[in-house]
Amino acid sequence: MDEALALAKKSMETGDVPIGAVVVRDGVIIGRGFNQKEHTGLASEHAEMIALKEAAATLGHSHLEDCTLYVTLEPCLMCAGAMVNFRLGKVVIGARNGRFGCCGTSVNVLTTSNHEPDVVFTEDQRCSQLLSSFFKQLRTMRKG
Amino acid sequence: MDEALALAKKSMETGDVPIGAVVVRDGVIIGRGFNQKEHTGLASEHAEMIALKEAAATLGHSHLEDCTLYVTLEPCLMCAGAMVNFRLGKVVIGARNGRFGCCGTSVNVLTTSNHEPDVVFTEDQRCSQLLSSFFKQLRTMRKG
Repeated sequence: MDEALALAKKSMETGDVPIGAVVVRDGVIIGRGFNQKEHTGLASEHAEMIALKEAAATLGHSHLEDCTLYVTLEPCLMCAGAMVNFRLGKVVIGARNGRFGCCGTSVNVLTTSNHEPDVVFTEDQRCSQLLSSFFKQLRTMRKG
Repeated sequence: MDEALALAKKSMETGDVPIGAVVVRDGVIIGRGFNQKEHTGLASEHAEMIALKEAAATLGHSHLEDCTLYVTLEPCLMCAGAMVNFRLGKVVIGARNGRFGCCGTSVNVLTTSNHEPDVVFTEDQRCSQLLSSFFKQLRTMRKG
């Protein structure tokens, strides 16, 4: 999760909401991603999507059953669906997303699918605090 | 849907399941995609995802409220989520997907989200027949 947090901070360089993700297999990081939605202008460029694609490209296939995705914020509907399509084994989530979290907090869509990754919430204060301070700063800037 | 069907046939050139999609705005196609999962080795490269990204790139933003996605097969969980993230106005679906269709057939995940595109099923026989003949041919090849 340390590496996912470091990646999350890179999102902020382009004004994106700080979210980072890594895919780990046998203790080795094989995919990295950070939220680039604003930077690219594409709503698909979430941290998880980028990390999953990189992991699959590294392995040469999309069967990530023996991989774990570490992500600083609970995945949305699209990224939960990507986890299913990439046959991800496990996801470890730093902070819950009360509005859009699709792995159990707002809703759990994984139970509706033909593949259900294991889900672990770590309630990592560093992940939620990073987001809180980003949005606080954003509000201050907008007021100013 | 004619153009989406023509694109679907391109998927078969690389051994992919024939699925095609276009994004239309003011009567003009601004995004095209066909399923390239096998071709790229990436489970994210669905027709809808590629078409939505191209449409957003064309417009320079991810607000597709005034756009319609025409797709030959009902979107999966990931693509349904992408439709939400891209704020798609409407989706017109050729064939239902009894196993993985997430817009109302297997399950409807769009009602769980903060943005719900209009959904129209056309029950287009050409779309279902294209898939049937592809899978029939695949079974014959595997037996041979």
